[in-house]
Amino acid sequence: MLGLMQNQQLLISSLIEFADRHHGEAEVVSRRVEGDIHRYTYKQVAQRSRKVANALDKLNLAFSDRVATLAWNGYRHLELYFGVSGTGRVLHTLNPRLHPDQIVWIANHAEDQVLCFDMTFLPIIKAVHSRCTTIKHFIALCDADALPTDTGIPGLRSYEEWIGLQSSEYAWPQFDENSASSMCYTSGTTGNPKAALYSHRSTMLHAYAVAMPDVMCVSARDSILPVVPMFHVNAWGIPYTAAMTGAKLVFPGPAMDGKSIFDLIESEKVTYAAGVPTVWQMMLSHMQSNNLRFSTLKRTVIGGSACPPAMITAFNDLYGVEVLHAWGMTEMSPLGTLCTLKNKHLEMSEEEKMKVRLKQGRGIFGVDMKIVGDDGKELPWDGKAYGDLLVKGPWVIAEYYKGEAGSPLVDGWFPTGDVATIDPDGYMQITDRSKDVIKSGGEWISSIDVENIAMAHPAVAMAACIGMKHPKWDERPIIAVVKKPGAEVTREELIAFYEGKTAKWQIPDDVVFVDAIPLGATGKMQKIKLREVLRDYKLPGV
Amino acid sequence: MLGLMQNQQLLISSLIEFADRHHGEAEVVSRRVEGDIHRYTYKQVAQRSRKVANALDKLNLAFSDRVATLAWNGYRHLELYFGVSGTGRVLHTLNPRLHPDQIVWIANHAEDQVLCFDMTFLPIIKAVHSRCTTIKHFIALCDADALPTDTGIPGLRSYEEWIGLQSSEYAWPQFDENSASSMCYTSGTTGNPKAALYSHRSTMLHAYAVAMPDVMCVSARDSILPVVPMFHVNAWGIPYTAAMTGAKLVFPGPAMDGKSIFDLIESEKVTYAAGVPTVWQMMLSHMQSNNLRFSTLKRTVIGGSACPPAMITAFNDLYGVEVLHAWGMTEMSPLGTLCTLKNKHLEMSEEEKMKVRLKQGRGIFGVDMKIVGDDGKELPWDGKAYGDLLVKGPWVIAEYYKGEAGSPLVDGWFPTGDVATIDPDGYMQITDRSKDVIKSGGEWISSIDVENIAMAHPAVAMAACIGMKHPKWDERPIIAVVKKPGAEVTREELIAFYEGKTAKWQIPDDVVFVDAIPLGATGKMQKIKLREVLRDYKLPGV
Repeated sequence: MLGLMQNQQLLISSLIEFADRHHGEAEVVSRRVEGDIHRYTYKQVAQRSRKVANALDKLNLAFSDRVATLAWNGYRHLELYFGVSGTGRVLHTLNPRLHPDQIVWIANHAEDQVLCFDMTFLPIIKAVHSRCTTIKHFIALCDADALPTDTGIPGLRSYEEWIGLQSSEYAWPQFDENSASSMCYTSGTTGNPKAALYSHRSTMLHAYAVAMPDVMCVSARDSILPVVPMFHVNAWGIPYTAAMTGAKLVFPGPAMDGKSIFDLIESEKVTYAAGVPTVWQMMLSHMQSNNLRFSTLKRTVIGGSACPPAMITAFNDLYGVEVLHAWGMTEMSPLGTLCTLKNKHLEMSEEEKMKVRLKQGRGIFGVDMKIVGDDGKELPWDGKAYGDLLVKGPWVIAEYYKGEAGSPLVDGWFPTGDVATIDPDGYMQITDRSKDVIKSGGEWISSIDVENIAMAHPAVAMAACIGMKHPKWDERPIIAVVKKPGAEVTREELIAFYEGKTAKWQIPDDVVFVDAIPLGATGKMQKIKLREVLRDYKLPGV
Repeated sequence: MLGLMQNQQLLISSLIEFADRHHGEAEVVSRRVEGDIHRYTYKQVAQRSRKVANALDKLNLAFSDRVATLAWNGYRHLELYFGVSGTGRVLHTLNPRLHPDQIVWIANHAEDQVLCFDMTFLPIIKAVHSRCTTIKHFIALCDADALPTDTGIPGLRSYEEWIGLQSSEYAWPQFDENSASSMCYTSGTTGNPKAALYSHRSTMLHAYAVAMPDVMCVSARDSILPVVPMFHVNAWGIPYTAAMTGAKLVFPGPAMDGKSIFDLIESEKVTYAAGVPTVWQMMLSHMQSNNLRFSTLKRTVIGGSACPPAMITAFNDLYGVEVLHAWGMTEMSPLGTLCTLKNKHLEMSEEEKMKVRLKQGRGIFGVDMKIVGDDGKELPWDGKAYGDLLVKGPWVIAEYYKGEAGSPLVDGWFPTGDVATIDPDGYMQITDRSKDVIKSGGEWISSIDVENIAMAHPAVAMAACIGMKHPKWDERPIIAVVKKPGAEVTREELIAFYEGKTAKWQIPDDVVFVDAIPLGATGKMQKIKLREVLRDYKLPGV
């Protein structure tokens, strides 16, 4: 027997319609590419999103056709979020930080029909448009009079001219909530990029979860600054949750420097900001140099990579801002865990609380997780056992777009590629990437742990631990080290440095001094490239 | 094109499994019928819910069979919430405050197969069990040795004996999230009771919404006391949201007096409580008489009927507790609006904030609302125009169980039976019940407004305004008045009392003095019965 409740599909268009009716007066403020501040309300977002919808319908796009963006965080991008998905097309947020060749490859793979881009990226589009074989319409996110006439991009139109003549009335179509709503390509370290194809349902459930007090805690009294880009897994879902709750939105545009971000937080009374550690590092430096203080900021969610303890302490002790560690993936919409405290932690000392805060956090309802050993069997949640982290839930992918790389699931669970522990209270901590962990004699050695010890040596500038094949132990760790300029340390000294700091069998078998460790575009060590550099290396005594 | 996300149905069983894994250590504390305090954890709730599931499976019930409860708020009731719905059966929470004849009628109408009842209600069940024609299994919520042998109820078993021998291992079945999960009958003032039949989907979406900061703001750091009964629209959904978030749950059992509730709030460090105004009135009296203060309570949600301003002020000014007005209906799972402030209100004076707090609140995402006039056309959100309030959304009913009373929807909207205004910020205020509003010359007169003026007269103990047929104006208001003992007021004096307090055409045409105004079981005025009393009444000059 079915329940007798209304059958209302969870659709992204309902978010902006709700914000229009219930929070029409709440503000959306953007620092534009032009440098000035643009300010309007959800009522106007809704009106202009409907104009976008009408404009898209006139382009004769099919349902589910991909409409791409190459844009910073800003109000026009927000209108596309609602306008594109609301009409049943798929919003494809391209990452402008990729190499132009990759952008072309991804746009062609996605079969994008329309590309809307910020003027910042006009040079890229000029260079590559002829190789984007599926794009029929190029739209520059600018006023009509800001559009150069000599771009060479066929049919290029300005966004304002494109939507300008459209009606702000529009009846959003109703359809299956499992329909695709948006997509985001992962910047995989191996092989071609693969895309997560989100649905309206997954996006909406994720939006409810993001609002929860133990996740981002978003209310109509908040002013939110998503520094995390809208091309990076939908800015962690913040634009959707903000419309759902009527929170004020503050967009930084391209200005990510410490001063610009700090000024925006102060002028727009931001209560809550979200981003990656590097941006906050720049802001904290700016604040320390200029002896500045926050007036309104209460919380910041930090994800993308682990947050250094010193940053958590600085935010908390110097500025009274609560730092929440988050963990997720493109394949997870992206949120999986957030590190909010439980009742039992509240009376702990700051030092004890810090131990909790350094973990990636506990599962959000909607994401289940488990850790498994080499045999695929689930490991205990004791905070010690570590294994491959798998997740499942309604906002986790079932497969990649176009079935690339086959079925990723293992018995219905998505393998994250991370190695983690989970403690008895459900707090998960990433200890390594699966591909980096060293499997020695049936035991696992965390490459990160080995690196952290080397990094503590005063002569070491950078260290990367990799596993080398070993006839008896399967793998044994070695550490590749870049010395600080003018500093000296020998192989023997460094190996002796490990003594007492870790179990004997976790001490690396060898030290290799290198001039540099290969880094990727986002600053992460590229161990695959390091392995290529060391392809002729032989373990001592083997 | 569909998104490529995991197809995971929203099922109630996933709540208790999540609480088990992620919040296994969080407490559930109950004051029992026996008077003592019972204390255990979500891990144990989960284990015993699985025992309930195994026990139910052994009764050879079909999918969707109804399992009824007649019980206070307590841990065994909570286990039934998860155990019954989790197996795909329908939890039917009977209201013990109804007349036994009504309970029998409802149990037969629902075709309940099992009835689990608190020992408080043994006398009722003894009296009526033979008339409950569909119930095959009677379970008393007590220990085996607490069960009397001479009840005359065939096959009566104790809950502890019933689940005691079952395994605490159970694989919850997976099924369509639109399947019925629970049901609740409305205490309609006319005709037979009608039931809302909730689905897993509606319950789960509602649970996400309840957790949001602008709704009940529930986190793992909360200790929640639902005084609102679990037989009253699932205690406003709190048991589900608590499991979803890992909040501590505190159940009052049958002890609703001021002292018991206050003591529980203090001893269990309750941060947040929810209930109807009468319970809080008793508690505030107890606190005032004994000069008591709260140590942990921060917020209380008040619904069921409008909260008197003096109560909001007492909580806020005397005790530093934020009072949140809520509005909903059995047909709405139940939450529709909650009165949390917006950013723009924060800098207002306390007096201005109070004006907002007296309203029923603003729409939660998931419930859309509108007000319409007699012609069915939508009225503006100006805080002045009032009309019939209609709602829609995924946790609003589409129809009643067994199609009773036909299709209630009007163009997809559910008519609430309330008359309301909505202001430009989206705050809704109930001005009357639709059936009580007086329609005079194309304009509407709020019976509540007319009554409130009469009630302000020092000689008036109680006043009820009803509309009487009028040949020219359709209807005109009259006011039925009960005088205070020993007080005097004439018809002319009372009508003169209205002058300057309301528009001339809203002043009642006549005053009828009566000895008493008929009241229902919950203390609400029964205007239908008043009409019967006045059936021979004629308007003056008609």
